[in-house]
Amino acid sequence: MSTTYSPPTATGIIEQGDPADDPRAFRRALGQFATGVTVISTSDGTHHVGMAVNSFAAVSLDPPLVSWSIRNESRNRDTFVRNGHFAVSVLADDQVDISALFGRPHENQFEHVAWTAGIHGDRLLDQAIAHFECTLEATHEGGDHVILIGRVKRCTRLDGAPLLFSQGQYGIAEAHPQVELTSAAPSVKSSDAGEESPLFTSLLKATEQHMSSLFDEYRKRLDINVVGSRVVNLLDTAPASAGELSERALLGEAAVEDTLSEFKTRGWVSESADKVFKLTDAGRSVRANLLRSAQEFTSSRLNGIDPSDLDAARRVLIRLLTS
Amino acid sequence: MSTTYSPPTATGIIEQGDPADDPRAFRRALGQFATGVTVISTSDGTHHVGMAVNSFAAVSLDPPLVSWSIRNESRNRDTFVRNGHFAVSVLADDQVDISALFGRPHENQFEHVAWTAGIHGDRLLDQAIAHFECTLEATHEGGDHVILIGRVKRCTRLDGAPLLFSQGQYGIAEAHPQVELTSAAPSVKSSDAGEESPLFTSLLKATEQHMSSLFDEYRKRLDINVVGSRVVNLLDTAPASAGELSERALLGEAAVEDTLSEFKTRGWVSESADKVFKLTDAGRSVRANLLRSAQEFTSSRLNGIDPSDLDAARRVLIRLLTS
Repeated sequence: MSTTYSPPTATGIIEQGDPADDPRAFRRALGQFATGVTVISTSDGTHHVGMAVNSFAAVSLDPPLVSWSIRNESRNRDTFVRNGHFAVSVLADDQVDISALFGRPHENQFEHVAWTAGIHGDRLLDQAIAHFECTLEATHEGGDHVILIGRVKRCTRLDGAPLLFSQGQYGIAEAHPQVELTSAAPSVKSSDAGEESPLFTSLLKATEQHMSSLFDEYRKRLDINVVGSRVVNLLDTAPASAGELSERALLGEAAVEDTLSEFKTRGWVSESADKVFKLTDAGRSVRANLLRSAQEFTSSRLNGIDPSDLDAARRVLIRLLTS
Repeated sequence: MSTTYSPPTATGIIEQGDPADDPRAFRRALGQFATGVTVISTSDGTHHVGMAVNSFAAVSLDPPLVSWSIRNESRNRDTFVRNGHFAVSVLADDQVDISALFGRPHENQFEHVAWTAGIHGDRLLDQAIAHFECTLEATHEGGDHVILIGRVKRCTRLDGAPLLFSQGQYGIAEAHPQVELTSAAPSVKSSDAGEESPLFTSLLKATEQHMSSLFDEYRKRLDINVVGSRVVNLLDTAPASAGELSERALLGEAAVEDTLSEFKTRGWVSESADKVFKLTDAGRSVRANLLRSAQEFTSSRLNGIDPSDLDAARRVLIRLLTS
């Protein structure tokens, strides 16, 4: 399969091939399917394990079944199968730290979070947006993973919005911009002019979405993706390890490792003996190009706007942001 | 389980119970886990079927396996099992119409979309962001569904961002607001003042995210969720069927049906013999309350800002939105 950073062809293809030949390219393609993030836990009364999982899926309504999969090499695999029950917590958008905590092997993860024991004794994370408390209904071989089917004995829906993982980065969900304004953001008939005038907050949202979408188009012409540009921007401030980059830029570790490996090949970063990465001269010039592109984009959009209007708009936005 | 619109308790619980007793509440809880949207297709050379699926999940890297599930009652179930191969297209954020098209039984869906035949003859949607071309590796009983495991023979990553389905509505992914500004949006050192001054586009994004998050907090105090408020807003403009509401507000059909059924119980809507819904007087007053809340929220945030600055900011936003 071709490299990560080929500019897309006319058909939009970035890389294509037999995934048996290139598991990392396969993982990048899988990352195109956005998911929520769950923490799945099990307990035998004295030993409590939990791990971040995004292979969770709904299976059946009647009977109520869900599925997920765990690597055969995971040290928790046998514990989940032996205990015969598990609990799923679907993480909220403000639980990205919890996802990182349960994304690595760690002895006492539950000491760092608020939890409640469920009906099988498995630990449920407080402030999650859904809980599924399951008995293990079946397991199926799944290559280097085992698929666990859970029968849901109790489910809970809680208040909040979901944390997302998509294209190697954490995110939040935003209403689709094609939603009709009449359904999402009612206009107000101003009594004096009889004109429809959108609420300032609706106007702000519509403008931001429009600008983001224009910038995404613009970025496609650059030979770097979102993950790559975040890594370059962070390394420009200070050298860092893969783990630090992942944490500070809210990127998946696999995506950061792929990117660093690609950047080394390109000569944009160098790696020290203790696995700290820093930008080379070539890397710094990539970062300067990125910055110049963002500035050019912004200038071109603002071109022709009255400078005093722009100053006033800046004052309003800063006031709203800081109040 | 309790009703959909109970205001959340201090623990955030909206509803809880045994999903065997209330499959619709179980489905709402499952909807808390955000997913991408795929169209999965199969072909025997003359007969081509495709359906929108969000139970897709990664299973194994080596060998490369993926899974999804199909209702036993689906008229396509036996076709997928018999053909022994299928192709997955992961939809892009601008393919919401395609998701709706493949979300309902329809004879000639592929006449309305651009597609390319893959290595097994299964149809791949153009402009998707990933393709997985699979042979059927195994099937497993999964309650009212069958789980299909595919071995990926060719995978393709394409340019674009994912379409999301989450909490009953279509959406797009946005970078997580906790991402450090230094990684996401570099500040520019202005040479004259030596001060850091963010790009206007970065300021716009940060302000919009901040306001959205404040409004979400505000909305939690209202006795209605996003799906409910869109349905009320749309019905205020004209009576509509469930299908029309789903299409115009980009909501899942199950979520719209749940909401309409709840609104009937509350006396907010009435249903005609031909299944068209309209707001009752009580429903219209709910809509008026929603509008007033949005206005109050906006006014409280804008309070104290110089009116001429606000007019200027409005001019700038409208200019950016329409240019």
